[in-house]
Amino acid sequence: MSPPLLPNTAFGAAWLAPEAFRAVGTRRVAVFGDGRLTETVRREVEQACARFGGVSVVEDGADLILALHSWPELPAAAEALRDAAAADPEGFVLSRQREVTVLVAGGPAGLLYGFFHLVRLGEVAFSADRPMEQHRPAMRRRMVDHWDNVAVHDVMGQVERGYSGGSIFWADGSLRKDLTRVRAYGRLLAACGVNAVSVNNVNVHAVEARLLTDRLDDVAALADQLRPYGVRVHLSVSFASPMVLGGLPTADPLDAAVRDWWAGTTRRVYERIPDFGGYVVKADSEGQPGPFAYGRSHADGANLLADALAPHGGVVHWRAFVYNHHQDWRDRSTDRARAAHDHFAPLDGQFRDNAILQVKHGPIDFQTREPVSPVLAAMPRTRLAVEVQATQEYTGQQRHVCYLAPMWREVLDFQPWGPGGARIADVAGGLVAVSNVGDDRFWTGHPLAQANLYAFGRLAWDPGLDPTAILDEWIGLTFPRDASGIPERLRRTVHELMDDSWRTYESYTAPLGVGFMVSPGNHHYGPDVDGYEYTRWGTYHFADRDGIGVDRTWATGTGFTAQYPKPWSGIYESLDQCPDELLLFFHHVPYSHVLHSGTTVIQHIYDTHFAGADRTHEMRSRWREIADTDLVDPDVYARVAERLDEQVRSAEEWRDHINTYFFRKSGVPDAHGRKIY
Amino acid sequence: MSPPLLPNTAFGAAWLAPEAFRAVGTRRVAVFGDGRLTETVRREVEQACARFGGVSVVEDGADLILALHSWPELPAAAEALRDAAAADPEGFVLSRQREVTVLVAGGPAGLLYGFFHLVRLGEVAFSADRPMEQHRPAMRRRMVDHWDNVAVHDVMGQVERGYSGGSIFWADGSLRKDLTRVRAYGRLLAACGVNAVSVNNVNVHAVEARLLTDRLDDVAALADQLRPYGVRVHLSVSFASPMVLGGLPTADPLDAAVRDWWAGTTRRVYERIPDFGGYVVKADSEGQPGPFAYGRSHADGANLLADALAPHGGVVHWRAFVYNHHQDWRDRSTDRARAAHDHFAPLDGQFRDNAILQVKHGPIDFQTREPVSPVLAAMPRTRLAVEVQATQEYTGQQRHVCYLAPMWREVLDFQPWGPGGARIADVAGGLVAVSNVGDDRFWTGHPLAQANLYAFGRLAWDPGLDPTAILDEWIGLTFPRDASGIPERLRRTVHELMDDSWRTYESYTAPLGVGFMVSPGNHHYGPDVDGYEYTRWGTYHFADRDGIGVDRTWATGTGFTAQYPKPWSGIYESLDQCPDELLLFFHHVPYSHVLHSGTTVIQHIYDTHFAGADRTHEMRSRWREIADTDLVDPDVYARVAERLDEQVRSAEEWRDHINTYFFRKSGVPDAHGRKIY
Repeated sequence: MSPPLLPNTAFGAAWLAPEAFRAVGTRRVAVFGDGRLTETVRREVEQACARFGGVSVVEDGADLILALHSWPELPAAAEALRDAAAADPEGFVLSRQREVTVLVAGGPAGLLYGFFHLVRLGEVAFSADRPMEQHRPAMRRRMVDHWDNVAVHDVMGQVERGYSGGSIFWADGSLRKDLTRVRAYGRLLAACGVNAVSVNNVNVHAVEARLLTDRLDDVAALADQLRPYGVRVHLSVSFASPMVLGGLPTADPLDAAVRDWWAGTTRRVYERIPDFGGYVVKADSEGQPGPFAYGRSHADGANLLADALAPHGGVVHWRAFVYNHHQDWRDRSTDRARAAHDHFAPLDGQFRDNAILQVKHGPIDFQTREPVSPVLAAMPRTRLAVEVQATQEYTGQQRHVCYLAPMWREVLDFQPWGPGGARIADVAGGLVAVSNVGDDRFWTGHPLAQANLYAFGRLAWDPGLDPTAILDEWIGLTFPRDASGIPERLRRTVHELMDDSWRTYESYTAPLGVGFMVSPGNHHYGPDVDGYEYTRWGTYHFADRDGIGVDRTWATGTGFTAQYPKPWSGIYESLDQCPDELLLFFHHVPYSHVLHSGTTVIQHIYDTHFAGADRTHEMRSRWREIADTDLVDPDVYARVAERLDEQVRSAEEWRDHINTYFFRKSGVPDAHGRKIY
Repeated sequence: MSPPLLPNTAFGAAWLAPEAFRAVGTRRVAVFGDGRLTETVRREVEQACARFGGVSVVEDGADLILALHSWPELPAAAEALRDAAAADPEGFVLSRQREVTVLVAGGPAGLLYGFFHLVRLGEVAFSADRPMEQHRPAMRRRMVDHWDNVAVHDVMGQVERGYSGGSIFWADGSLRKDLTRVRAYGRLLAACGVNAVSVNNVNVHAVEARLLTDRLDDVAALADQLRPYGVRVHLSVSFASPMVLGGLPTADPLDAAVRDWWAGTTRRVYERIPDFGGYVVKADSEGQPGPFAYGRSHADGANLLADALAPHGGVVHWRAFVYNHHQDWRDRSTDRARAAHDHFAPLDGQFRDNAILQVKHGPIDFQTREPVSPVLAAMPRTRLAVEVQATQEYTGQQRHVCYLAPMWREVLDFQPWGPGGARIADVAGGLVAVSNVGDDRFWTGHPLAQANLYAFGRLAWDPGLDPTAILDEWIGLTFPRDASGIPERLRRTVHELMDDSWRTYESYTAPLGVGFMVSPGNHHYGPDVDGYEYTRWGTYHFADRDGIGVDRTWATGTGFTAQYPKPWSGIYESLDQCPDELLLFFHHVPYSHVLHSGTTVIQHIYDTHFAGADRTHEMRSRWREIADTDLVDPDVYARVAERLDEQVRSAEEWRDHINTYFFRKSGVPDAHGRKIY
């Protein structure tokens, strides 16, 4: 049942390194329950025991009891936890008394998550008595979206915004023959708490559209691989499917024939894949078809699919990423940041219960620094999911170390109604990541980028987790090689590279909330300050010889600040109160403007760019210090070392390009006389 | 023998519209001579006479005598011209006495060119006595280079920098099945005086390399089509051919096995294609292999191929486009403009007689405005050819009207040693154009862009021709529809669109000699002022808040000015004497610098951009005025109209982007208060 490790790949097991199973695998373990996921757990236990000398028992003398709360004949130790466990089918209850560790789950999925929780705990789970702890996911929807194309796209390739090689699902127009890796992927996802995957790009091209109908067998084959790990498969579908697949003359969501087509098509999907998860839709966005063509709202569009899915228990993830991508740069009144709120806030209350509005975490598009999207505070009567991007499109493309959990945690912690009010994590019922996984031998191109996917799953389960602690978990699960655990030196090195890497990346690429100073087209890698400045994409910085930034105030700008509730509308509106790191997102200021930090805008730009590039040198030095040790596999060492070389080169390019650009424009010399070209 | 016109394409005949043959075709014509090209002329005559009622006769009562000077039994009228004609095998002598027009050629090619000269003259050739005129080409090498790929290139497509559809030679990896169009192309080339074609891209990829060996039959098939019109086929070859095709361990030009390989391979080419023209080589340039890898000079490299070709009468065109394409933008001392002179001037006198150094007309790369390359004045003991670009890579990509003959004429007229000295046209023995032709129904995408190819051929024949007069010829040959000739209104309209179109394009894209403010990557269309500013390509403008331009002076800059002989070294060096249109090419000046025209640099930028965009509106209006006439074919009208719409849109984008960029940077308002965004 458990898949083999990938051959010759130290990181093939990712955060399920065989050694991580030692603590469980040396125990006498009893598993109570049945059903597919319980079987998965039982086989995991057997495999671990076979490796480390433990044994799978029925009850007598068990060190560890794993049980479903609904199992009729629970042993006494587990019986005491039964009622508490019943609360959540994905949750579990854990305690240790009288030298027996007991985990009782609310359902099969809970048993699986509980098992991997024990793997994470390791010896700690068996070292002392533990009072009863209850575990349950904070978010019901914990999903990874793959922007994988079935057929290689002319411009975007096999995986759109993919930096880890090809797709693990698709190759050259077909489902891969060998799906071993998909099975291993499902296991990794379960081990960090993910329960849903969409298997194709939200930009649905011709071949991919047909996954819904005549290529449904491909989807079923993927579902078969992921099912043992409780991961449900979803499809990105084209809103125009009734026309392009069904031959209807319209895709109007209020047309009876269209509704019938979706109902019948969806029924056939469920006949083939009974635990199919649902649909993901990018509509009226960047050229994808949508309800606007028929004068209908996005609620009409989403509800059309929700109604087709409801009888089968499916959901639709409807993306809120709708904006005018043919903007005139001359027009300074139109503001792309406003678009999602303008489109969706008025529709609050009109979506079905099984329609989930999937909102990018910021109002623009996965930039290194954005404020939290005001849509997330504007739709109390709508199910919401927050979309983040594990694939590092704008954050270094897995060539730069950029640990994203600190950014995501900031988003989830944001309190739109001020201190003491609800957090984003409270109003969102789901967290969705765009996948960073491909057929690369290390899964994610940069081996350390694995931590982003792991941390995503963990934050979706518990948004209150500390990013440093999550990273520590990941290190512990990924690097163990023997019973002595993780050498402190390795642990420290990885933390030194990763803990502050997002802020480091921000420091040399995106000062004070400015975004999109990147190479345009399909690159998005490396600096180009004016790359998007005179384009149709609505992503401008308006730098001139006197100042920089976008005036999004209500008083004199685009009015975007007014989309936030108090106190943030006021805080962002106020030049005095606006946080430094978002200053240029909300205000156009002179280069001489003094930040809360006490430095001027222009000096801040210079300082952070010099410091950021210096920091990448330090990161590389830290890594090189372990070169001649056996702390990491030589292949992993080499890949990280090679990427760090590129990060240093690229950070210096960012530093010099940005500093030169703003020096030429402002004429203000660096206060410290450093080299600006 | 003559090819059919392209079906349903008014412009398929280009400058050989059937009606253009009326004057010849209504005469009694006698042709004296034999051989392939004479046969071509005889059949052209027969076809024209068949259409217009003339007759092919032997001698008695001929209105027109066409003869080879070497024909043993010349009629008396021709005999008088025999000695004068003997001067040049490509030349001819023409006179009209006693109501007989007589043309005697120095050789078969001269007969062909003479015939097309008569077609150009039309009735004028038969209307009055003409004293004897001698015609001969100023340049021996009159060549069109195709950057056509055999296999579609991932990035560059079928035709690199092609804006006229696919290749007329190649499609999807193979020679085209139907070569009708190649035959028609050869006829068009002969009619404007071109005698050589290279049939594949100077960037030689894997498939194309093999044209030299196992795919030589494809080249032979093209030669068969072009031979009847006196056009010799050339191949672009990879300098690494001995390795990639011959399996040798080196391509060192001094290695005996390498020299043998080239000798043998070239001999086999001539066995298959006895009139093969020779090779074109791009070496040590933008990634192409070359002699530098072996520590050899470019003379060594060129002579290697020249020696292989010499026994067969072939030539090698060795391109001087060699520069560092991995320059660091931070390094302001390296100057790409210097590169060709630095590399090649020291080699003067070292090249074989059949090695032709092919030099781009400017020192950078086919920008809208550049000074003439100083290499052309630095190599008196080397055969030189000037390379121009008919395909409008940087001049509007055949979406903008841009008649290039005025630019080329300026280049050919340039007197490097000052007034009274030799012109470029005197020191260059060849003119080469990068082709603008593709499988587009109008040949060149924009129908009016045909005139560039026509004008190229005519200038290579006679660099003293006036561009307006050449355009007039082209109009006369392209648009006639009946015996009444070209309506004056149409003639005027086309002149109004085209005569000043190069300067118009310059006015809204490339002020004062600044180049490369274009969209980078493979686009090169549309404005992006900083698109190349922080790249490795060596193409910078160095604009800051105070000024703009590249200091290429000897005194304070890169020293490029010193590569020119006097007086130009001094003129370009001097801020006072440097011509306005090249000011920013040679000097970095403040925006407030006052031009010879009396305006400041910044005001000049604004003025020319407003005026240029306005001018495109006028051009479109002129064209629209003939919308409801029958002056041009409706398909041609529509295509030109559509392109003019795009030109107006694009010119406004250029105007606003450039003006906004420089206003933001300089802070200087427009003196006339016009709209700058």
